[in-house]
Amino acid sequence: MRINTTYFLFILFILFHSNIAQAQKKANIIVFMVDDMGWQDTSYPFDTVKSAFNSRYHTPNMERLAKEGVAFTNAYSTPVCTPSRVSLITGMNASRHHVTNWTSPMKDQPTGRDDQQFEEPVWNHNGMSPVEGIPHTVFAKALPQLLKDNGYFTIHAGKAHWASAGTPGSNPYSLGFVVNIAGTSTGRPAHYWGEQNFGRNTNDYHGIENLQEYFKQDINLTEALTREALKTLDFPINNKIPFFLNIGHYALHDPLMEDKRFYQKYLDQGLPANEAKYASMIESMDKSLGDIMDYLEKKKIKDQTYILFISDNGGLSHTPPRVGTPHTHNKPLRSGKGSIYEGGIRVPFIMKGVKGDLMSKRDHTPVIIEDLFPTILAMAKITAKEIPQYVDGQNQLGHLKSNKIDKSAMDRPLIFHIPNKWTTNDVDGFNYRSGIRLGKYKLIWNMRDESYEFYDLSQDLGEQNNLIQDEKLLTIISVMKTELHNTLEARNAPIPKRK
Amino acid sequence: MRINTTYFLFILFILFHSNIAQAQKKANIIVFMVDDMGWQDTSYPFDTVKSAFNSRYHTPNMERLAKEGVAFTNAYSTPVCTPSRVSLITGMNASRHHVTNWTSPMKDQPTGRDDQQFEEPVWNHNGMSPVEGIPHTVFAKALPQLLKDNGYFTIHAGKAHWASAGTPGSNPYSLGFVVNIAGTSTGRPAHYWGEQNFGRNTNDYHGIENLQEYFKQDINLTEALTREALKTLDFPINNKIPFFLNIGHYALHDPLMEDKRFYQKYLDQGLPANEAKYASMIESMDKSLGDIMDYLEKKKIKDQTYILFISDNGGLSHTPPRVGTPHTHNKPLRSGKGSIYEGGIRVPFIMKGVKGDLMSKRDHTPVIIEDLFPTILAMAKITAKEIPQYVDGQNQLGHLKSNKIDKSAMDRPLIFHIPNKWTTNDVDGFNYRSGIRLGKYKLIWNMRDESYEFYDLSQDLGEQNNLIQDEKLLTIISVMKTELHNTLEARNAPIPKRK
Repeated sequence: MRINTTYFLFILFILFHSNIAQAQKKANIIVFMVDDMGWQDTSYPFDTVKSAFNSRYHTPNMERLAKEGVAFTNAYSTPVCTPSRVSLITGMNASRHHVTNWTSPMKDQPTGRDDQQFEEPVWNHNGMSPVEGIPHTVFAKALPQLLKDNGYFTIHAGKAHWASAGTPGSNPYSLGFVVNIAGTSTGRPAHYWGEQNFGRNTNDYHGIENLQEYFKQDINLTEALTREALKTLDFPINNKIPFFLNIGHYALHDPLMEDKRFYQKYLDQGLPANEAKYASMIESMDKSLGDIMDYLEKKKIKDQTYILFISDNGGLSHTPPRVGTPHTHNKPLRSGKGSIYEGGIRVPFIMKGVKGDLMSKRDHTPVIIEDLFPTILAMAKITAKEIPQYVDGQNQLGHLKSNKIDKSAMDRPLIFHIPNKWTTNDVDGFNYRSGIRLGKYKLIWNMRDESYEFYDLSQDLGEQNNLIQDEKLLTIISVMKTELHNTLEARNAPIPKRK
Repeated sequence: MRINTTYFLFILFILFHSNIAQAQKKANIIVFMVDDMGWQDTSYPFDTVKSAFNSRYHTPNMERLAKEGVAFTNAYSTPVCTPSRVSLITGMNASRHHVTNWTSPMKDQPTGRDDQQFEEPVWNHNGMSPVEGIPHTVFAKALPQLLKDNGYFTIHAGKAHWASAGTPGSNPYSLGFVVNIAGTSTGRPAHYWGEQNFGRNTNDYHGIENLQEYFKQDINLTEALTREALKTLDFPINNKIPFFLNIGHYALHDPLMEDKRFYQKYLDQGLPANEAKYASMIESMDKSLGDIMDYLEKKKIKDQTYILFISDNGGLSHTPPRVGTPHTHNKPLRSGKGSIYEGGIRVPFIMKGVKGDLMSKRDHTPVIIEDLFPTILAMAKITAKEIPQYVDGQNQLGHLKSNKIDKSAMDRPLIFHIPNKWTTNDVDGFNYRSGIRLGKYKLIWNMRDESYEFYDLSQDLGEQNNLIQDEKLLTIISVMKTELHNTLEARNAPIPKRK
């Protein structure tokens, strides 16, 4: 056989070209996780109507992200922090991974409050673990590890809180992150201000690590984390390596401390100090999102980069530190962080694709935080093989590309489970509850008195009208009770024992 | 033109092969820096005779490294910590970079002690800076930045101490490191034990960051840092990216705390507690070196990886915390850390090449810590262009490959300069001194009383016989005085003003 020159050059061209394409054929992925951000803590309305909260807060970059992507109007996390974070990087529902409450900074310290009726349930109070056999942890292969194993440059910046200190899960480097900025076993910052060294160099173990450059500087923690996170992207971008950036802001977690760049504006709106502080923290977080989006544009990688924006639970509605009537800060949603009501679990969730083909879409499919695990793997074109955990999450990329409503996705049961005593009183959906959402309906089980509530969210988003006695609904109520209890039993979900 | 199939396949083979080779054509480089390790703190004799110290300490892996590489018998750092570290990553002599004393953990706090005669000299007490215009810093492009810009995956693990908190130089991420484990502005650890959380979560700002996984565990800091450092190598090795690992152990800096794995052995040798602790810290550090060497062998990259082992200054000879006669702990060298005498500046230095062609060689060329900058760039085949600083260091790779003695390298003047009050008393070479070594001679200038000392190191390594009045040596003394003062003047070196 003889080959002519044209054909030879063509082959060379193909080889050369495929090599260039290969340089970065995988998309970049950014998870932008906000702490304790409620469904209404934004100027972008996730509800069908614009609320007073939507007018109060200013989040222009969330609006921009929603314009460029898909806003999920029925997105859920768990009622509190660590369970959501563990679900995200394991793909497991909280009822399966058993990390059902927030984890203590130090290991072997279950965080439930004392209760007259119940013992502390047996749950994974040390968090998740990438190593088998660590007591009171769930053993799983973490999302960043899978991504790293497939060539991704994986970065964690900000709040980690996947496990307690003294266990491998507390160390982002042991979870598959190539870089870790400031991620520890703590769930809140000691201080938001650079002037106060973010509370480091004090005996408060919530002091933030890795940010010494900003000590004694007039800079907010959210800003410092953003700058450090962007710094880490140099290496993968310059070397054409796909990256996964998991930026977990400590904001909006208490202590409520103003971001001075935005505070006065909200005082001028007439907000009381703590509410103005809260609003300034929201806008600060939003600026971080905008800075990241700007950076992607500047580096010309916007079209190759997914962004997933989500909160780990509902907005804080306790007073103090919030101001006004308790548990009204996510209205029309009922209650807030910690609660099984929508205010505790429904969260803002926006996903920006890589090609702009999902622009300005609103999606009403009920989705839950563990869905991010398979969705992100699909974005990275990775099949998770031989992993120890069962993945409850569903890939949400598929149905978005279709214009038809995915009936099976709409009718998937979503399970919520917090068999712990998170706060002192059981008011407004706190402590010892499970919930199941199926289509438009939601069933709540209160372990304290074995009572149930039932709501039609399509008519009653605020969960004010308990339909548990409605005879027309007895069948669906029964179906959902069975589904909830069968699921909890099958997953051996923690249930508190009576004393 | 027509091409036959054989030729075509040959071209394909070449293309494919060159691509593979390209995957990692650059050598890996490891700097293994020990803190406060004296020239005699090892079982490998750098001197021509084996000393009692060489018999006391056990460093089998240093012996192994020396067997595989080159041991430098006339290697120098500066008398204290930060100046050496800044020299290493800038290539500048201390008299030029003006970071002539250790830097405070917090910025704007010069560390010199009060003196009746002298003001605090004007020096760069905030350390080095990768950004221009930061007060009291030396602006330079750091070695890791140059390596990173050229595709190296750059890792810092352990003690950093290049600058004070509140400045960019305190942040390894701003110095060009892709990853930073535990590197901060502090120069010593609050605690060496995992059981005590390495002093983190206390109000001691010397608590170590990024090691929460090991809290409440029976593990030594040196071991924890080694494990974390090796973890970071996964990514570059798996992705065939050359790496630069700068592991800076906090050991042997005080507080002297035993590594329990090795302590008893030294007590059994009859050493007093603090000396047994010190010896256990040396062996602990040596195990770290061994673990890294084993890792390179396991990963089959030993032959592609340079290792440079060095200490940042001489061994601590103060009592307390050392035991026995003060300033005898580096014998036959005089004095220790902080001093202009050999005990303060002469350090163990071993360099392992990439092909074993430098095996078991001993090299007597006087070399100094800033030489590592151009030497490492030569190892990485990088030409440092357009950098703001003047590089004093000399590439030491060249003369090693020749069997001839390099006369110009042997007769290069080496400058030492510490115009600061490091410790309370001026005894035994401390405070306000400069020195110059030229060939076998050493001249010392004492700023306090403008006096000079002169030694012939080839005859008098212990600097006991001051030859300043020796008439036969007047010419060389005069030459060296002139050289020293001209150099200090040309570099505008800090000199303290009289009060």
